[in-house]
Amino acid sequence: MNSNSNVFCIIMAGGIGSRFWPLSRSYKPKQFLDILGTGSSLIRQTYCRVSRFCSPENIYIVTSDIYKQQVQKHIPEISENQVLLEPMRRNTAPCIAYATQKIALRNPNACIVVAPSDHLVLNEEAFLKTISTAIDFASINSALLTIGIKPSRPETGYGYIQVGKQAEKRIPNLFKVKTFTEKPNLDLAQVFLQSGEFYWNSGMFIWSLKSIQEAFAKYLPDIQSLFTESHSLFNTTDEATAVASVYSQCKNVSIDYGIMEKADNVFVICAEFGWSDLGTWGSLFLNSKRDEGNNAIVGKNVVAHNLKDCIVQMPADKLVLIQGLEGYIVVESDGILLICKKDNEQEIKTYLGEIFAEKGDQFA
Amino acid sequence: MNSNSNVFCIIMAGGIGSRFWPLSRSYKPKQFLDILGTGSSLIRQTYCRVSRFCSPENIYIVTSDIYKQQVQKHIPEISENQVLLEPMRRNTAPCIAYATQKIALRNPNACIVVAPSDHLVLNEEAFLKTISTAIDFASINSALLTIGIKPSRPETGYGYIQVGKQAEKRIPNLFKVKTFTEKPNLDLAQVFLQSGEFYWNSGMFIWSLKSIQEAFAKYLPDIQSLFTESHSLFNTTDEATAVASVYSQCKNVSIDYGIMEKADNVFVICAEFGWSDLGTWGSLFLNSKRDEGNNAIVGKNVVAHNLKDCIVQMPADKLVLIQGLEGYIVVESDGILLICKKDNEQEIKTYLGEIFAEKGDQFA
Repeated sequence: MNSNSNVFCIIMAGGIGSRFWPLSRSYKPKQFLDILGTGSSLIRQTYCRVSRFCSPENIYIVTSDIYKQQVQKHIPEISENQVLLEPMRRNTAPCIAYATQKIALRNPNACIVVAPSDHLVLNEEAFLKTISTAIDFASINSALLTIGIKPSRPETGYGYIQVGKQAEKRIPNLFKVKTFTEKPNLDLAQVFLQSGEFYWNSGMFIWSLKSIQEAFAKYLPDIQSLFTESHSLFNTTDEATAVASVYSQCKNVSIDYGIMEKADNVFVICAEFGWSDLGTWGSLFLNSKRDEGNNAIVGKNVVAHNLKDCIVQMPADKLVLIQGLEGYIVVESDGILLICKKDNEQEIKTYLGEIFAEKGDQFA
Repeated sequence: MNSNSNVFCIIMAGGIGSRFWPLSRSYKPKQFLDILGTGSSLIRQTYCRVSRFCSPENIYIVTSDIYKQQVQKHIPEISENQVLLEPMRRNTAPCIAYATQKIALRNPNACIVVAPSDHLVLNEEAFLKTISTAIDFASINSALLTIGIKPSRPETGYGYIQVGKQAEKRIPNLFKVKTFTEKPNLDLAQVFLQSGEFYWNSGMFIWSLKSIQEAFAKYLPDIQSLFTESHSLFNTTDEATAVASVYSQCKNVSIDYGIMEKADNVFVICAEFGWSDLGTWGSLFLNSKRDEGNNAIVGKNVVAHNLKDCIVQMPADKLVLIQGLEGYIVVESDGILLICKKDNEQEIKTYLGEIFAEKGDQFA
């Protein structure tokens, strides 16, 4: 592995995970949950995974200031100055710009891996092999690399990347990116799947410090300037104040929209390593252990009869008798109960908006 | 009204109401619940209803010794010696024999109305009129009277009474009973409904002390002897011990099976007064206020979308988001959750048996 001192990692952990309400709540978003019941939280799994190719002192976690203590509790190995606190949510571009600035102050030759904190990777060896190839390529090329996942179904919940020409003969799975697409409808997703040219956009990136700084300078110069102008205050007691000022002036923009879709040196490394963004109950279901009725049930005292294709998550001590449901999500957490058709889970967000508007944020 | 000193009432309140689990539990059975959310419990409603034709000091409540305090709390008007405590459950015949013995010691000319404590009567004036006619008839005839309810649907959850000849010209709705039937299947229930000869068996009885004592002597002489032999200990400090001894020797038998189906002086007074035994979630649903989706929802924080024909009962403070259910019962009480198809509610009892066997009686 390339566990050399130039390799850095940015773990993005600011998400509020409203999709898994009421299991995830604003005070305990998805990354801090052991959502599949494996014994460790998603952020802890991510940390352990990236520390196999990156020295622990080179790992930065970017999160909201309200989650600082949770990050430290889940990853006690890292020091306080590796937990970067965002004073407000401004999407992924400012998040990456902030961490990049911190890394720039330490190592001008850094090669950086950016990873979300709340995704699933089942095949860690395949993941590490992909990362290794990506770091090798990104270290010596002016390239912005993203990881594309070979689709296994016509998923409508992901963005897709269409591959263009192979970049190098010796790397069969690395291509120039032709287009990024938004989440498709089912018909289009089926076309994508059959074409063989489209890969799921995993939201993981690999690039050299130099490449990403050039890209920020070219495509998001405002954000770049805000951070470089304040950089003398970084690593001082005034960092938080400086960052607060920078963030208040930063626009809300994703790295995909702000840079990846505009730059002309964007590449994708295609891989399969049992990846899921665990972004929906449906994807959670696909990655959960199921019983003979194809139900994913968490909860010691759940008594089920004639149950099929359901996701049930209950507090361990709660007695629940469920009969005759097919294709439903039944979840209780912190005294809030959700019962919803799996097919309609996209509507939950709308309903929640109404609930929070009417009943107040204590339920968020 | 016949509110004369000869009229007595026996309210049977020993039921454990397992049908409404988890809303009713062994420590708070149905009669003590305000199950329709009207503002008073079913036993309180029953007491108020019968006290319109019966002096409060002539009302006896028969219940299990474990419910004594709950009875006194719900009906503070009556004195301790009017609450008769059964040391064990032996069905309705011993229950009625016990209270009858107590009444015999007070008034040999008593006319007695027997009523369950957990039924619903919507039209109290019609009910009182029926009772008045029944008392008039039972006071002067050697007759065992039951109340038959004009069926409004082919209900399979009730027993039926087939009427024979009209008893008296001046009372158009009072007939000799031809047969008692068990709960029919749906086909038979439809035949019953169309025939016009069949009425729902309400489980309410009216008879003179003399008539019921004669019937006990003839059809249940064992039970009769047990109580008369001990009657000198009644109304003494040894009553509980005597009753414990009697009950331990009594067989478990209903008044219907033990007397009504065998005696030849059984009459039925047919009536309509908005009656339900509230014996099933379905019957509860029929008697509840419903929203535009035909749902009966109890709970201030229940947010429902695309919900149809459902019964939802939730603790007031609990936030619940339910989407896309049709024809289900969703009930939570004391931390236990039930989700079940309305059509399958008969199966709940079986499931509960399994649960209690496996997980223990603390859930009963």
